[in-house]
This record gives sequence, C-alpha cells and structure tokens, in this order.
Amino acid sequence: MIRAGIIGSTGYAGYQLSVLLSQHKNVTVAFFSSHNYSNMKLSDVYGNLRGFLEDICIDIHNVEDKLREIDVLFLALPHGKSFKLVEKALSVGIKIIDISADYRLRDYKDYEQWYGVKHELAGCLKDAAYGLPELNRKRISNSNLVANPGCYPTASILALAPLIQNNIIDNTSIVIDAKSGVSGAGRSANIPTLFCECADSVKAYGIASHRHTPEIEQQLSDLAGEKIALSFTPHLVPISRGILATCYGSLKKEISQNELYDLYKGCYENERFIRITETLPETRYVKGSNICDIAIRKDDRTKRVIAVSAIDNLIKGAAGQAVQNMNILFGLCEYSGIEMIPDIL
Amino acid sequence: MIRAGIIGSTGYAGYQLSVLLSQHKNVTVAFFSSHNYSNMKLSDVYGNLRGFLEDICIDIHNVEDKLREIDVLFLALPHGKSFKLVEKALSVGIKIIDISADYRLRDYKDYEQWYGVKHELAGCLKDAAYGLPELNRKRISNSNLVANPGCYPTASILALAPLIQNNIIDNTSIVIDAKSGVSGAGRSANIPTLFCECADSVKAYGIASHRHTPEIEQQLSDLAGEKIALSFTPHLVPISRGILATCYGSLKKEISQNELYDLYKGCYENERFIRITETLPETRYVKGSNICDIAIRKDDRTKRVIAVSAIDNLIKGAAGQAVQNMNILFGLCEYSGIEMIPDIL
Amino acid sequence: MIRAGIIGSTGYAGYQLSVLLSQHKNVTVAFFSSHNYSNMKLSDVYGNLRGFLEDICIDIHNVEDKLREIDVLFLALPHGKSFKLVEKALSVGIKIIDISADYRLRDYKDYEQWYGVKHELAGCLKDAAYGLPELNRKRISNSNLVANPGCYPTASILALAPLIQNNIIDNTSIVIDAKSGVSGAGRSANIPTLFCECADSVKAYGIASHRHTPEIEQQLSDLAGEKIALSFTPHLVPISRGILATCYGSLKKEISQNELYDLYKGCYENERFIRITETLPETRYVKGSNICDIAIRKDDRTKRVIAVSAIDNLIKGAAGQAVQNMNILFGLCEYSGIEMIPDIL
Amino acid sequence: MIRAGIIGSTGYAGYQLSVLLSQHKNVTVAFFSSHNYSNMKLSDVYGNLRGFLEDICIDIHNVEDKLREIDVLFLALPHGKSFKLVEKALSVGIKIIDISADYRLRDYKDYEQWYGVKHELAGCLKDAAYGLPELNRKRISNSNLVANPGCYPTASILALAPLIQNNIIDNTSIVIDAKSGVSGAGRSANIPTLFCECADSVKAYGIASHRHTPEIEQQLSDLAGEKIALSFTPHLVPISRGILATCYGSLKKEISQNELYDLYKGCYENERFIRITETLPETRYVKGSNICDIAIRKDDRTKRVIAVSAIDNLIKGAAGQAVQNMNILFGLCEYSGIEMIPDIL
Repeated sequence: MIRAGIIGSTGYAGYQLSVLLSQHKNVTVAFFSSHNYSNMKLSDVYGNLRGFLEDICIDIHNVEDKLREIDVLFLALPHGKSFKLVEKALSVGIKIIDISADYRLRDYKDYEQWYGVKHELAGCLKDAAYGLPELNRKRISNSNLVANPGCYPTASILALAPLIQNNIIDNTSIVIDAKSGVSGAGRSANIPTLFCECADSVKAYGIASHRHTPEIEQQLSDLAGEKIALSFTPHLVPISRGILATCYGSLKKEISQNELYDLYKGCYENERFIRITETLPETRYVKGSNICDIAIRKDDRTKRVIAVSAIDNLIKGAAGQAVQNMNILFGLCEYSGIEMIPDIL
Repeated sequence: MIRAGIIGSTGYAGYQLSVLLSQHKNVTVAFFSSHNYSNMKLSDVYGNLRGFLEDICIDIHNVEDKLREIDVLFLALPHGKSFKLVEKALSVGIKIIDISADYRLRDYKDYEQWYGVKHELAGCLKDAAYGLPELNRKRISNSNLVANPGCYPTASILALAPLIQNNIIDNTSIVIDAKSGVSGAGRSANIPTLFCECADSVKAYGIASHRHTPEIEQQLSDLAGEKIALSFTPHLVPISRGILATCYGSLKKEISQNELYDLYKGCYENERFIRITETLPETRYVKGSNICDIAIRKDDRTKRVIAVSAIDNLIKGAAGQAVQNMNILFGLCEYSGIEMIPDIL
Repeated sequence: MIRAGIIGSTGYAGYQLSVLLSQHKNVTVAFFSSHNYSNMKLSDVYGNLRGFLEDICIDIHNVEDKLREIDVLFLALPHGKSFKLVEKALSVGIKIIDISADYRLRDYKDYEQWYGVKHELAGCLKDAAYGLPELNRKRISNSNLVANPGCYPTASILALAPLIQNNIIDNTSIVIDAKSGVSGAGRSANIPTLFCECADSVKAYGIASHRHTPEIEQQLSDLAGEKIALSFTPHLVPISRGILATCYGSLKKEISQNELYDLYKGCYENERFIRITETLPETRYVKGSNICDIAIRKDDRTKRVIAVSAIDNLIKGAAGQAVQNMNILFGLCEYSGIEMIPDIL
Repeated sequence: MIRAGIIGSTGYAGYQLSVLLSQHKNVTVAFFSSHNYSNMKLSDVYGNLRGFLEDICIDIHNVEDKLREIDVLFLALPHGKSFKLVEKALSVGIKIIDISADYRLRDYKDYEQWYGVKHELAGCLKDAAYGLPELNRKRISNSNLVANPGCYPTASILALAPLIQNNIIDNTSIVIDAKSGVSGAGRSANIPTLFCECADSVKAYGIASHRHTPEIEQQLSDLAGEKIALSFTPHLVPISRGILATCYGSLKKEISQNELYDLYKGCYENERFIRITETLPETRYVKGSNICDIAIRKDDRTKRVIAVSAIDNLIKGAAGQAVQNMNILFGLCEYSGIEMIPDIL
C-alpha cells in the first residue's frame, strides 16, 4: 500500500483528492491536513462524508513530523505556500504531487512576474515534471516532484496539442476562450462567488492577464519547438464543476474535416481518459470523471480550425490528474482509482 | 397613440414585446396574436401577467382582418413564416418590424442557403432596413420594413463596429465567441432545453455554421467597405436571459489601451443604450434592460484586441430593440418605453 | 417632493430600496449611506446601476448631520444597529421606516429573547406601527415609526389572515413551511451562501427557532383575539429572489373549496398588491413586483386547508413594502412607484 | 452472475439503473430496452456514457423473446404500461422489480381511483412486496414481484416510521411538505420543465391530490395498525437531483429531543443507507448515493415534532433502491453496487 498525506484537504480540490485517495485500493491516507478546519472531522466540513470519511484533519503545522510515515505528499494549497514543506519533504526522500502553480513554470522569473511572489525553491524547478500524463508520461514517471497542471491549461493543452505537434496551424493565431464553473474559484468566502452574485450571470475576467497563460504557452511552445504567445480569456459560468475550452487557430496547410478527426483519434489512440467525439463536448458529459472530451471542427469559410474540450475542473483539472500522476509515479495501473463514469445529472 | 399589433406574442420574445408595448405611453396594442395559445388570455400562458395583461390572443389567421386598425405590425415568428402577412401588411401601408431573420440578409440567396427555406418576398429585401439604431438610425427612420437584428449579431456588431469603422484590426482575424442564455432557444418543448439537460452544463453548438454568421458578416462588411469572413461560435450557458460576446481581432496599427477606450467612448458618445465600461461586462449588469455594455482590452503580448459586450437577449437582442425601432419610425423619443434600469438579481 | 434618506443602501434590500426610491416620482433621495462601501458610488457596488444611479454613498456616521434635510429615513441595517439613529431621527421629527426587526415585536422582552441583544429603545415600541398595509393601513398612516415586516411574516400572515379573521381553523394546528431564495441571507461573504454550497441543494434551517416565528405569531394572535403558537420552518432553495409559504391548518367548521376561494377574494377585494389565484402560486409569477399571490385549497380527506403564498422577498418582503408604507405615511397613492409588472424570466 | 434486463433504460430512472447495474460486480445486463430510442446506443442518448456503455437499446417489443435469458427484469416505465410484460415474465418464472407505481397499492381500486387507469393484473397485487428494505426486508426476500417505492414515499416513510411505530404522534396530525428536483418529472419534452420555466422558481403542485399520497398512507397505516390519512404537498425546486421531506406531527406523549434522537438512532441502527444526523439534512449531502439522511427536531413551544429527510430521488428514490431490492432477492450483500459516496458538488 502506498501511504499518502494530503495538505489542504478542505478546499474543493483537496476535498476531491481526499475522496479519491480514500477509495483508491492501493492507497492508505496517513493524514488529512487543513489550515482553516484543523482538528475537525472532514465530515464536519463536508456533511456528505458522514459515515464515509470521518478522519480528523491535523493542523498543517504538524505535518512535518509525519513526513516519514508517508511515500507521497499531495499539496492543495494556494500558490506560494508550499515551499517550506516541499523542501522538507524532498529532503526526506518522499515523492511530491503539488496541485498549486508553484512548480509549473520552468523559469522562476516567469513565476515571480505572473504570480507576484518570490519563488523560494527555484532550484527545484529544473527537476519538476509537468504532470500532464498524456504528453509527459515518461518524465513524470522519473520525477520526485510533479507539478499538477492547472485546470484551464489541462483543457487547453490537450485540445491544441495535436494541431501544434503536427504543425497544422499558424502558431501566432491561437485564441483560447474558456468557460469555468464556480468551484474553480475555491471555497473562500468572497462576495463575487456568492450564489446571488453569479447564479444568473456570465462574465469574462482576467483578459490578457490570467496566470494560466504562461503555463499554456510554455507547454505548447515545447510541442511546437518555438516560442508561442497566445490569447487566453477565462469566463465564469454558473455551474459548479466543469471547464469548456474553445480554441481557435488558423490553418497553415490544407486539411479536411475527416483528416483532422483522424489526426486527433490517432494522437490520443491509447489514452483512456481522452475521448475524441464527433458531437460537440458538453461539460455535463465529463462531470465527476477524469475524462477529457475533445471535438475538432474545420471552418471552411475562414480557414480556421476550432478545437473544443471539456473536463471536470476538480478531477481531470486537479485531483483526478493528481491521482493519475501518482499511479504513474508508483508504477500502478494508470487508471486505478479514477475510472468513474461521468454523471450527467 | 400608435396602434400596434403583435404576432407571436406567447413566445419569449413576443412575451417581452407584449409587456413593453402594453406599458408604452404612446402605444395602444390593438391585438395580441398567438399560434399555439389562440383564444387564451396572455395571463393564462404567463401567470405573472394576471391582473396586468389579460388580453385574449387572437388566432394568427384572424390577423389579416385587423391590419387596417393598426399603424405598425410586430412579428415574432420563427423564420420563414412571415411572408404572407408582411406582403399583405405592406400592401395596406402599415409599417412592419419583424423580429425573425426573414429580412435581415440583403441577398435572398444567402437567406435560402443558410436558412434552408425559399424566400417568398425577395423583392422587399432592398427596402428593408437593418434595425440596429446605433449604426443605422437614419435608414430605419425612412423605412416601412425593419428587420430587427438577431441577438448574437446585436452584441457582436456593437462590440466590433468601432474597430472596423476605424480600420484598427485585420479584418481576416476576427473571432467571436458568444455565450447565450437558454431563452434564446425559445419556448418550445424540446429535450435539450429541459432543466435537467442544461442546468449544470456548458456547450458550444453550431460551430462554423450558425445562421447569425452571415448577418454579422454583412453588417461588418458594410462598415469595413470590404467583404469580411469571420468565425462565430455560439455557446449555451445555464442562465435565462443574457448574451456575452467575446470578440477577438489582431491589431494592424499601434494603439494604446487608453486610446482604444477613448475611441469606444467617442463612437458611442450619444448613445443612451450603450455603456462603455472600464470593468468587464457581466450579463447580470444589463438584465431586464435595453442596455449594451461594452469593454475593450488590448493584449500587449499578442497584439490583439478583445472587445466584450453584454446584452439582454430578449430586450436589446429582440423586443427592446424592436420598440427602439418603432420609436424611430414614428418620430418618438428613441428611449420611450425602454428606459428600464437593469436588475442584478 | 418627499425627501428621503437611506441607511444601508448596499445590502440587497437597501439596493432594492435605492432603485425604487430613485425612480419614485414623488421622492428625492437626499442621501444614500453605506457602512462597507462609504465614499463609493452605488454603481461601483452594483454595476448594473452605471449611468442610472451614480450617487456616492455617504458614511453612516455622517448621517446624523443630514437628518434635518429629509422627511423620511429608511433603515436597512442588521438588527440591533438602528437604536441611536432612530432615537435621533424621532427627536428631530422625521418619519422612520425600519426594515430590520428592531421595532416589530411589541414586547421588548420577546425581542431580547429571540434576537439575543438588548433593546435600547423599548419605549418606542408602543408607538411603532407594524407595516403590513393590507392589515394595518390605518395605524401605519398615523405613525412616525413603521416597522417593516419580515419577508417570511409578510408571506405567511397574508396567506393565513382570512382563515384566522374568520375563525375557520383550529389555531393550535398551524404549520408554515416556507422556502426562500438566497438573497434573503443578505450580501455578506459567507461560505454557506457561496454558489457551490447552495446551487444544487435544498435544506431546512432554524427549525422551531427562527426569529420570524414570534413576529408571525404576534400578528396572527392579534387577528385571532387569542394567543397563537405555531410551527414555522424556513428552507433555503437555489433561487435569487422569492419566497413561497405553504401554510396548513385544520378546519374547525365545514366550508367548501368555493367558499374558501370566495372568502379570500372578499378579504382582499380592494388590495392592488394581492392576487387570489385559482392556479397555485409560483415565485416567478411575482418576481420583481410588489405582488403577493395567494391560493387556497381544501383537503377533503384530512379536513385541512392549505394556503400557499408567493412574494418577491426583496420587494413585497422588504423594499417594496417599505415604499408602500411611505406612500401611506405621506398620503400618496399607495401604489406609486411600486406598480412593476412581475417578470417571469 | 445474475442476468438482468432493463425496460425503459433511457428515462432518468432507467439511465441511473443502467449505470448502476452495468457496474455491479454480480450482474450482467442481458439487454437494455427503450421505447423512444430503440436501436440507438445508450451513449447516443446520454453522451457521458461514450466509451462506458455503448450497448444498443432493443425495442421494447422484442423483450418478450429475451425473457428466458434473464433472472430478473427491471421495469422503469410510466404507470399502466407494465401489465403484459409482467404477466409474461412471471409466467416464465423470472423475478421482477418494477419502478412504476403499478404494484405498490395493495387494493386495485385505490390504484384505479388515483391513477385513472384500469389495473389489468390485480391478481398479482397480493403477492407483490413493497420494496422498502429498511421496513420490509423479509417480505421482499421471498417475493417474485417487488414494487419499488416512489421517491416521495421513500423519503416520507423513512422519516416518519420511528414516530409511528413507537406511537409517539397523533396519527391524524401528519403533514408532509416535500421538495423535489426536476428529474422527478422525467425526461419528456414538456414546457413546464424547460430551463426557463423552472430555473428561477419554486412552486407547490398536486395539493391534496398527488398520487404518492395513498402509497405513503398505506405503508404508515401498516406501521400504525390503524388507518392514517395525512396531508402531502409536493413542491418543485430548481435542482436536478434530490428530495427533501419536512414531516410534521403532534406529540401525544412527553419525549425529549435527546430521546427522539436516540429513538431514531435505535430504529435504524444497522441500516447502512440511513444516517441519523444531528445537523439538518441537505439534498447535496446525499446526492449520487443510496443514502437517506434523517434529522429529528422537537418544537417545545407547539408540542410538535419535525422529521426532515433527504434522498437522491433517482437513487434511493428509484434505481439505487431497485438494486438494493435485487441484492436482497438474490441473497447478495445488500450494499453491493450501491456504496457510492455522496458528492456535494
């Protein structure tokens, strides 16, 4: 059995991770930890867990003492809060899967510029693996520190990768227009995410400035072999779970709709968690699962291609992918513990 | 008093039109008409109207006899159903405001291609005015047949017009990613618009094929003085009212964020129904009103500009704009009857 | 023109009041005041108001100086915060309409027991009028201090009054099961009213202990001429606006369904804001209006009667009723400024 | 392996049953059948099932030929449609679990009165077992025909049973006020369940006339040993899944809050699917699970007791309970295949 510890288990991503790991047949959770709800039961914070997950969350300050009891540490903290714990954990030789943005950007200067905080563990960045298994499986398997991708980047990169790997679109033409459910904003008590403030509305936010932009660009640039700058616009929509990413690019070669479909089918041929669909994705079709649905459309009139992807932001966009990465790190079946059928209702 | 008749008063747009016109201080509604609910009170279909609007809807087949009693006929029918009535109404000399798509495209062949039905009144198209007052006020005022714009086109054209009129973006680079509430799909009993099918989901639809595309292109081409082809992607989001259009274009000249803002402010300086906002639009900020909010953002990194607009699809995107057009047609104050403050809740 | 001041204009009820009063043709709002958003424009807090209500909210501490400039002061504060201002305002002879619970209970000991704070102005309670116009119009018109009813009490009392006034039900048998939208919980940043915590759920709360219970009992007891104790259970449902109250009582005399309907029709015969409906009320049928819909049903099998009422909690349940009370206080048409047609969408 | 057939697998309850049975480790689904979508893949109707459940639904008319291939037949049809198939299935000796109301009422005259159709298989009613395991486990285990309870009755009966079994309340005083999500109305294309018609509203319906009333009364009467008549009021609330039942009764003996809690704890002591909670139930706490949460409250002031229960209407209220019944019928572990942790988001 793999012994796991979870930091930040009462946020939405941490909650999801706690549920998934506690049901994983190869995992024992050694401890759950929380900042705001320490010494409370998980089931006192999430009443649905009564009778299922009654563990008491330890205080985050008591985690260090427990590092030697575990094989892998999951962190689900806000950015900039992980450095000390990760340093300590690496020093005692345990593997780390970090769900924050702290180890995703290769260059600490990019991190400091976009996130506005000092990176206190820049020396680790070169060894961190970007945890998108479908594109980086090998490197993940050899790493001690996995930077779990952001939710928007997961949806965006998976949607665009086949086009970029195959040099099909003009890399200066990329526009990503993404729509996220409210759980992406976390479980903090803020007015803009109150029911009455977002239940009957749609808005864009963070235009030309969202922190997931450099993460998407870094990964797509790697695939392209050249530096890509793109436009990324996130939107808030009144659903709890889900991201839909609508991605635009201008074709630089002639290719038919059928060839595009076949290309996508081929690229993701053996990927259990990716479905290339003929009909257009809907977030409800992936809700509660680790699946990413992708459809590809050619616009003959404008010589543009539109790739649409849908994920559950808390699962493939966070906790599910973290488990997928853990499975890879420890040589388990990659699907173990994350084979949930999506639930439409 | 202007005497008006309403065809299709029990659909969502027709309902909205009925409410607005019945409260308009310069208008008497001579008749409400319905196909599915003829001989029923409006308030039996829309229970909120009890005590306010208890008129009985006459059968659509009885409308012809009443044409001589009115000055203006509003039609809120599905496309392809207006031809006979419009022909008759024009022949008796009354003014027409049509909310369907039947008279929006100047070339009947475009209509027949995109809508898949024969245009039985193609001869009228050259005299029809496209009813977007902010861009076409003069022509509307002289017309007998106003083609009320579609909801997506209203939001999209108003957002992009200043850029195109001023030759600021590459006209081949335009991408419009729009999000609509469910009322846009009408009040028909269809499974995809059931609560359980769309309440917790987001999807794109009609990629590269939505019928509002040629309408947007036609109007923007007029402004550009050249033929524009663009990508338009509609999405369905779980709100009742509202459209948010996020519009992308590549800058072809250097211009600062401040200059862009001033440009928009200038273009719409005297327009009561357009607010150029510094913060980003949200559909709830225009709900229940005839307002179109627009914000403009420059993305320095990609040399792109992003214009975001929000409207209430049933008001500025349909019934409110129809009333605005009527006000123009009859020389009334353009704001009369449509000065509602938006309601956030 | 009546000069009004508004305290607490940035909460949801205060927002609604600000919108209604600023459009009232007989009212000039002398000042808007806010605790959390002082020195900000109302339209910076509620973006929908841009161009309509750009007044700057003065600090609540600066209100005292302005009391002599107004005829009526509206207070929309949490309970227990009004005492000093009300005392001062009464001393300078202006009329007061208080939306909180501070002056609703006749006996200050009831207030202190249910609300857990000391009543610092108990001497005023005997002169305060309970502001439910349909049942207390005369007393309101002669009062300087109107205690605007709670949202649940408004819906509950109006639904039950005809039964109790006419001695039709066993007064020990009353059960009120009410469902409220989330705006009833106010605009504070709290986790339980986050979108993700309440968007897809229904719950009861405050069983046998909700503070609106003694208020309902006091008013119904007055109508009955005897002390009534009843069960009141509030529920939270995922809508923004609206309350539905389902009220049960056991018949103590034989009466037919038709007689019940006629009784209700008669009781509220001249009440513009009450609609006795044959079909069952839905909160959407009263949304955005000052209307209270009521239906009455007899259950022959159990000899019980069920009265169902629906209101918009922010209008008839708060701000609209406050305006109605002001109209009465100042001898205006009672409907002035609150004749909005409900909006179903 | 138990071989199962499913009739009506494309309605919401049938969908849920298909998902549960296809994942059940002791079950092979021999066929899925549909009326409206025969010869289509389940995953073409429910896009979330792509890659998971790609079976083709056979036409309901072809089911008879397949009866000999199965051990158990599940029917999820509208009421009044099961008679021929059930008769045939019983004749070939297979077990039946019917999710409709056709075999729940012991007296066919009650059925005919409340449902308005002739009962064509009244002879079977005496042998049908009411499939509420917590109260009827033994009888279910010996039956060939299990009448799966309605969703409202499941929530209501489980909430009230301890009070009635222990003779604690006046049986003439019972009021059940229940709130259901929209999936309870099924997947038919009807205007009242369109998103725009119910997304922002709450209503009561079927007051004193809902068909689940005699079912609840029958079961509670059995527990009481006397005929019970009660008031049952269903409400529609804008959630997809979930029922909350708020049940009122007048105490006929003195009992403390703690004693009530202990009573409930004791009654359901060994019931895996029932949680007696100290805090009040919320439908989100049971969503996606076979759990029924129940809380009990005493109202000292009125000598009333209020029991509140929450279930997922499609699982404990339909498909999950059907699987639970199958597990009992075939001597499997009663929890097999239905141990899902509820999901709050």
